[in-house]
Amino acid sequence: MLQVQSHLEGVLSQRGERMFKAEIKSETLKSLVYIVSTLVDEVKFSVKPEGMSLKAVDPAHVAMIDLEVSPGAFVSYSADETNLGLDMDKVKSVLKLAGPGNTITMEQDEEKGRLTFRVGNITRRMNLVDTASMGDPHIPNLSPSGIVSIKVDQLQKGIRAAESISDHIALMADSEGFELSCEGDTDYASLRMEGSELESLKVSSKVRSLYPLDYFSNIIRAIPAGTSVDVEIDNDYPVKLAFKLADGEIDVTYLLAPRIESE
Amino acid sequence: MLQVQSHLEGVLSQRGERMFKAEIKSETLKSLVYIVSTLVDEVKFSVKPEGMSLKAVDPAHVAMIDLEVSPGAFVSYSADETNLGLDMDKVKSVLKLAGPGNTITMEQDEEKGRLTFRVGNITRRMNLVDTASMGDPHIPNLSPSGIVSIKVDQLQKGIRAAESISDHIALMADSEGFELSCEGDTDYASLRMEGSELESLKVSSKVRSLYPLDYFSNIIRAIPAGTSVDVEIDNDYPVKLAFKLADGEIDVTYLLAPRIESE
Amino acid sequence: MLQVQSHLEGVLSQRGERMFKAEIKSETLKSLVYIVSTLVDEVKFSVKPEGMSLKAVDPAHVAMIDLEVSPGAFVSYSADETNLGLDMDKVKSVLKLAGPGNTITMEQDEEKGRLTFRVGNITRRMNLVDTASMGDPHIPNLSPSGIVSIKVDQLQKGIRAAESISDHIALMADSEGFELSCEGDTDYASLRMEGSELESLKVSSKVRSLYPLDYFSNIIRAIPAGTSVDVEIDNDYPVKLAFKLADGEIDVTYLLAPRIESE
Repeated sequence: MLQVQSHLEGVLSQRGERMFKAEIKSETLKSLVYIVSTLVDEVKFSVKPEGMSLKAVDPAHVAMIDLEVSPGAFVSYSADETNLGLDMDKVKSVLKLAGPGNTITMEQDEEKGRLTFRVGNITRRMNLVDTASMGDPHIPNLSPSGIVSIKVDQLQKGIRAAESISDHIALMADSEGFELSCEGDTDYASLRMEGSELESLKVSSKVRSLYPLDYFSNIIRAIPAGTSVDVEIDNDYPVKLAFKLADGEIDVTYLLAPRIESE
Repeated sequence: MLQVQSHLEGVLSQRGERMFKAEIKSETLKSLVYIVSTLVDEVKFSVKPEGMSLKAVDPAHVAMIDLEVSPGAFVSYSADETNLGLDMDKVKSVLKLAGPGNTITMEQDEEKGRLTFRVGNITRRMNLVDTASMGDPHIPNLSPSGIVSIKVDQLQKGIRAAESISDHIALMADSEGFELSCEGDTDYASLRMEGSELESLKVSSKVRSLYPLDYFSNIIRAIPAGTSVDVEIDNDYPVKLAFKLADGEIDVTYLLAPRIESE
Repeated sequence: MLQVQSHLEGVLSQRGERMFKAEIKSETLKSLVYIVSTLVDEVKFSVKPEGMSLKAVDPAHVAMIDLEVSPGAFVSYSADETNLGLDMDKVKSVLKLAGPGNTITMEQDEEKGRLTFRVGNITRRMNLVDTASMGDPHIPNLSPSGIVSIKVDQLQKGIRAAESISDHIALMADSEGFELSCEGDTDYASLRMEGSELESLKVSSKVRSLYPLDYFSNIIRAIPAGTSVDVEIDNDYPVKLAFKLADGEIDVTYLLAPRIESE
């Protein structure tokens, strides 16, 4: 019987009828969507039997994101190799139909280029976005020399303090601790954390860079409370934020270009 | 003594000094006002010793409402025959002064054409709206062939799913179940309930009509959570929504014209 | 050792390096800031070893405020004689960084004309506002003949009832009770409290004045729930509101000019 099924799937596959069907907790889909939509409105997910992934650059080419979702992030997952072009705003409208703890079913109907979501007795179908014009951006393999592990809640606190002071935020780490600071013409705000208040601190010499506050703020706000974030910085160098969602089943890497201070 | 009082009331009544005085729970007045104000801003209540009633048509003549309030909906009720012209926004401002469980007293001072509300130690008096130009719309006696009884919470869920997909919503019932659906150029949403999930289902053959989503959405949102609604539909026919408020003491019938789909 | 410290402080003081350093509960700073900002955006606090004070008149010269903050309002307080020019909106942004129960540290760095706030591991520094052009308004010593003590919650209820009826509110007291009322062309609202419902009532003869609703409403809304307010009125005379914040350690007097009704 199983042999017959396997044979049939092979035949379907040859006929180009690729398949994607998955169930996911609404909280998991939500955290994923909110992270991605800080950067882009429409995305291409690369779907494979061993999981989904996404690489995207924002329209201004200031930040990029690399996301790996393992099948373990789903309640159930079954996929051939395919691409899913998704409009993040529409997926957010599906999330509003789900309560906490609800499971959302997603199923592709590739011939018609559509994705169908199901939440309880609600069916929500949408056309997939054309992915032909969406490239696969190369995510550079950066190795900043300072690495700080910190709860995102602390970073969120620092961002609140920086609001309306300047358009940029400085991240600084030395062997003693980590600091976010923001300096305007008449105002200044900073959040300073000593090594003992951090989850870990690996810095050989003092490193410091300046970043656009709006980008940094948007990604930090989208990370669920309680998440540990690896903040990797260097002098006048991109910041790399690495964190996990869904009990470690989703890996996120976020890169943000520095603003080089003119002398 | 009672005879004297009765005699005096008779005299007052002959002199045209008609009387309306009632006490009502703030929750009851609120549910009534929110239902009516989905359709019209100013209304004429017909007051009689045996209860109040209201018939109103919206300015675009797309929907109408028929409301019967029995004296049992009030904490106390005492009325001669009269009309009350009320501005719904002003009554809403009175509701904001009352907390849950508060009783609101209403008393007409007909000579001066005013209504006085009392909530605790607050007095709020307003001029009555002139009802001379307000007709008594005829509410047609429709008998759609499909009748579905359903908790309003389910309808509210269906409306959330339909948002921003199309301007119209289709209601469909067959012998198996009931369905709300909404179809746009690229998107589709539906809520499907089998007979076992409904409170009752009386449908001989499949019936389906299309309605303007904004009207349907406004009335459904105004119905208190937990209320059972009789949804009566037919093919390309007005929908009739019938439900009770205030432990059955208020009877509401709402009619909404269909949009006839052009072939 | 203490002698040396004392000597050093004396030397610093002779060099004109005046000092202000205080710790305050976020709730206390918040109540103070919200009261003051109903009237003015930028203020001059007069700081002395025995406490802080503020006298301010609103730009339209309709209302004035007199505020006395004793050192007991602070967790710790240490000050030479100086002035602090503060932008209320910026202090509000500091309050947003503090949770309930948090202590906020304020420290002046007079040479550089700046004030530094600290909340946990956050540092927020701002330039002081120039106080040279800010006068010391004379607060007249009024003695209205009617004095009513009342919980601010009652006044807040009366203001909600008066909304959108008229631009003015009448305060009236007689030997029996106290009344707020508002009369428009078609609408009327009042809150009436008998003597037994008030905390105290000292009125020899009936007194009544009319006040601008927006000013009265703004100050009443800014007073924390549960606060007892002395409302002092007379005929066509300013109203004096006197109340205490922070367990009696902050004394507030607020005066509001009447609107003289033309005959």
